[in-house]
Amino acid sequence: MFETAELGSRIPKSEYKVREPLLRQELLEVQQELREFGEFPVIIVFAGVDGAGKGHTVNLLNEWMDPRWLVTRAYDKPSDEERERPEYWRFWRDLPPKGRIGLFLSSWYSRPVLERAYGEIDVAHFDDRLDRIVAFENALAEDGALILKFWMHLSRDAQKRRLKSLEKDPLTRASVTERDWKHWSMYDAFVQAAELTIMRTSTGKAPWTVVEGVDHGYRSLTVGSIIRDAIRKHLEDRRLNKEIQSQQKLEMTKEAESETAPAADAEAEKESETKTTAPVTVLSALDMSKRLTKADYQKQLREYQAKLTLLHRKAHKKGVSTILVIEGPDAGGKGGAVRRITAALDARNFQVIPIAAPTDEERAQHYLWRFWRHLSRAGRMTVFDRSWYGRVLVERVEGFALEDEWKRAYAEINDFEEQLTDDGIVLLKYWIHISKEEQLARFKAREETPYKRWKLTEEDWRNRERWDDYALAVNDIVQHTSTRSAPWTLVEGNDKRYARVKVIKTLCERLAKALKEI
Amino acid sequence: MFETAELGSRIPKSEYKVREPLLRQELLEVQQELREFGEFPVIIVFAGVDGAGKGHTVNLLNEWMDPRWLVTRAYDKPSDEERERPEYWRFWRDLPPKGRIGLFLSSWYSRPVLERAYGEIDVAHFDDRLDRIVAFENALAEDGALILKFWMHLSRDAQKRRLKSLEKDPLTRASVTERDWKHWSMYDAFVQAAELTIMRTSTGKAPWTVVEGVDHGYRSLTVGSIIRDAIRKHLEDRRLNKEIQSQQKLEMTKEAESETAPAADAEAEKESETKTTAPVTVLSALDMSKRLTKADYQKQLREYQAKLTLLHRKAHKKGVSTILVIEGPDAGGKGGAVRRITAALDARNFQVIPIAAPTDEERAQHYLWRFWRHLSRAGRMTVFDRSWYGRVLVERVEGFALEDEWKRAYAEINDFEEQLTDDGIVLLKYWIHISKEEQLARFKAREETPYKRWKLTEEDWRNRERWDDYALAVNDIVQHTSTRSAPWTLVEGNDKRYARVKVIKTLCERLAKALKEI
Repeated sequence: MFETAELGSRIPKSEYKVREPLLRQELLEVQQELREFGEFPVIIVFAGVDGAGKGHTVNLLNEWMDPRWLVTRAYDKPSDEERERPEYWRFWRDLPPKGRIGLFLSSWYSRPVLERAYGEIDVAHFDDRLDRIVAFENALAEDGALILKFWMHLSRDAQKRRLKSLEKDPLTRASVTERDWKHWSMYDAFVQAAELTIMRTSTGKAPWTVVEGVDHGYRSLTVGSIIRDAIRKHLEDRRLNKEIQSQQKLEMTKEAESETAPAADAEAEKESETKTTAPVTVLSALDMSKRLTKADYQKQLREYQAKLTLLHRKAHKKGVSTILVIEGPDAGGKGGAVRRITAALDARNFQVIPIAAPTDEERAQHYLWRFWRHLSRAGRMTVFDRSWYGRVLVERVEGFALEDEWKRAYAEINDFEEQLTDDGIVLLKYWIHISKEEQLARFKAREETPYKRWKLTEEDWRNRERWDDYALAVNDIVQHTSTRSAPWTLVEGNDKRYARVKVIKTLCERLAKALKEI
Repeated sequence: MFETAELGSRIPKSEYKVREPLLRQELLEVQQELREFGEFPVIIVFAGVDGAGKGHTVNLLNEWMDPRWLVTRAYDKPSDEERERPEYWRFWRDLPPKGRIGLFLSSWYSRPVLERAYGEIDVAHFDDRLDRIVAFENALAEDGALILKFWMHLSRDAQKRRLKSLEKDPLTRASVTERDWKHWSMYDAFVQAAELTIMRTSTGKAPWTVVEGVDHGYRSLTVGSIIRDAIRKHLEDRRLNKEIQSQQKLEMTKEAESETAPAADAEAEKESETKTTAPVTVLSALDMSKRLTKADYQKQLREYQAKLTLLHRKAHKKGVSTILVIEGPDAGGKGGAVRRITAALDARNFQVIPIAAPTDEERAQHYLWRFWRHLSRAGRMTVFDRSWYGRVLVERVEGFALEDEWKRAYAEINDFEEQLTDDGIVLLKYWIHISKEEQLARFKAREETPYKRWKLTEEDWRNRERWDDYALAVNDIVQHTSTRSAPWTLVEGNDKRYARVKVIKTLCERLAKALKEI
């Protein structure tokens, strides 16, 4: 595919001098519009042959645009903090927030392409890496990000000439390294890996543009114009989209209003007839009568806590991290179960992350970003009290997420969890269930106990009205996201003792198995 | 001072069994109150002799309280990401936000005490380290944080017995290391360093409590009760404080209202007579007529940009970071000056941080936290377009910060900047000044140029009305914060060309000097 880029495309200096100031002005303007609109980030990836002007182009864009709303990131070898986390952690933490532009050099493409060119990985493994890239970019694009990727190309001879001329100039001499020459000698292997990469990862939402790198003027104006046009078009599309959505919402509100009046009485009825109308879900099959005597509970709890203490210490030594996701209805006993676990752990090596409404910094990012930031260093346990499943639970049921958004979330979640487990993290997901009657009893008890009253909010009562919707959502979650390496554990929670022991017991079993395998 | 803690204080098991559940309940309640009040963080430091139960106490607190609003941090050797930043960066990034509790093990005390005990630093140097701690804790306490510090003590013999008994139990055997025995053999040196530390760093706002570590029950109940009482008292104080402040504000508003009416006309007058009533400040002495011809400007700019490119590359190689603070009135030319600098830099190695209103995550922290988070790895340049001086500029003038807050900010800023320069960072601070007339001309020009109109806001006009207040604030800033290692550069900015060249020239000179010195 690089043949088309061998034409020696050039732009005469006189033409450049006319077009350059115009383009700069326009780029500044779209950047400003982007910032004002503030609803999506722009992610621009630069890759290609050494000496083809990647760094130079990025510097030029920094000069042309307002650097305050621009972030440039280049990746060297991972730091030890980065090495102790999944590969993509460092890319996630550097993503530009909505309204800003991020320029990425030697990005997520760099390692796969180099490893393939050096022959360190075979084609099948290389394919896996490219799949991961496609999934990553898709998740960002689906969230509204504009993604542009430029492949700067030089022919074998042109690259040689470029490196030599860089070496002659005292100002640029230092920028040519032995590594550059080494890569030049591997030109064919490198280009082969690159061709496959571009073919496999050029998607409609994140397309590659191959730019010939010989002529500075041609290269700069080409890249600049493509960026300008793409941002303009994306702004237009998103604005249109927003209008359509706000109209739809208006119509839905109207419909809802016309239905509300007669429904008010029905609400009271519904509460009493739950049992007959409740949908059949994975939760219906749970045996909610399971319980433990106090003596059994204390014996077993002590036994598993002692086990967990030892396993946790061993996991820490071996650098094996564990992530627990705890979900379930309000008053289902999530907090109590978490405390029975953490009581057995060394406080230096675990963290509990309660997930409530996102902060404004989090709202300005992809919804998975706020979970990435809490990933721990190796050998720790992280307990998420509620989690990324909020997207397909509360956000779905309450209509905070669009249908399109929560439907694609299953795939995004599977992809995210796969990265965790691929990194060697032991991932456990619990749904601690209680019956609707049990919840009512617990709500009432909370109302009557002074120091528990704060735990009960208006929202809890509201969520309760949507009981069946939540049950359906849980059913979908289990069907879509219970994978072999990250299965769901459904916990019968009407008896707190039974539930706590089941949670800690499962944790011990999984952890013991994982530690044996490594 | 440790003699008092040699009494072998114990609590009988039967008493413990009665007091423990009560204390747990009370701790949960104050934790909940703290969270609801949400206006200050609690920072609890644990230090002391190995085997005296620091880790055990922290684990117990995690069990007693709600771990969702509790953060525990222990510090090992710094990671490479941490090593490339000032020593306190890792403590700053771990500070609990308002409403939460942070438990710190082997914290900022650990290295100084160990280094002194090992004889690696002399007493003078040790004193410096303790001064740094006092300044750090003071800044947090002044911001409202509640700080508690526990020194867990054991006598030399008791420590030996404890280590031996830990070694006997198979569950705890692994927790006793060779290092523990090594430290035991250095008991006297260690205790001597500790005594000095406690004497020097036990301040009214961040006091130490020495707790005898022999008896588990005594230790736990003592620490727990002190925490409970301290949080209760702090909550009370802060609530009272808040009430007083809101009353004062009410009175001030009333006063202001009664004064506003006749002042409206005076405003118009004021604008015309600026020259006669303007206060004499460091800015009055600037020669605002300084300018450069276009030819001189282009020649000099090119010359210094070329220099800067080389210096920046050299600094990057040597791992020397540079931080630029750019302040000045609206339309003073800050953005233009920044772009003339960044044009000479490699985009991979600099970042521009525009400072506007804090995000809600930032608001939940000490006001310096949002600057700490942007400190770069070694060898980079960071340009702050507005900065931590906002506290003593806009926040002071507009009344967003209380008088007490902005007055103590000078010392906090000096301390912060000292940490930067001590870490080898080259710090430059610019005030780019323009005259009041020049600002008016520029505002008008912005109104008339379509693509510059967005730069001008209502707020700019409002700030202009406070011109003299800002001049006085700048005067105070220069007087309080111009230190030898971080001096202010006042830039005559009526002529943009002159200003840009002065900024980049100063930068080159400072950077060249700094690179020569290392």
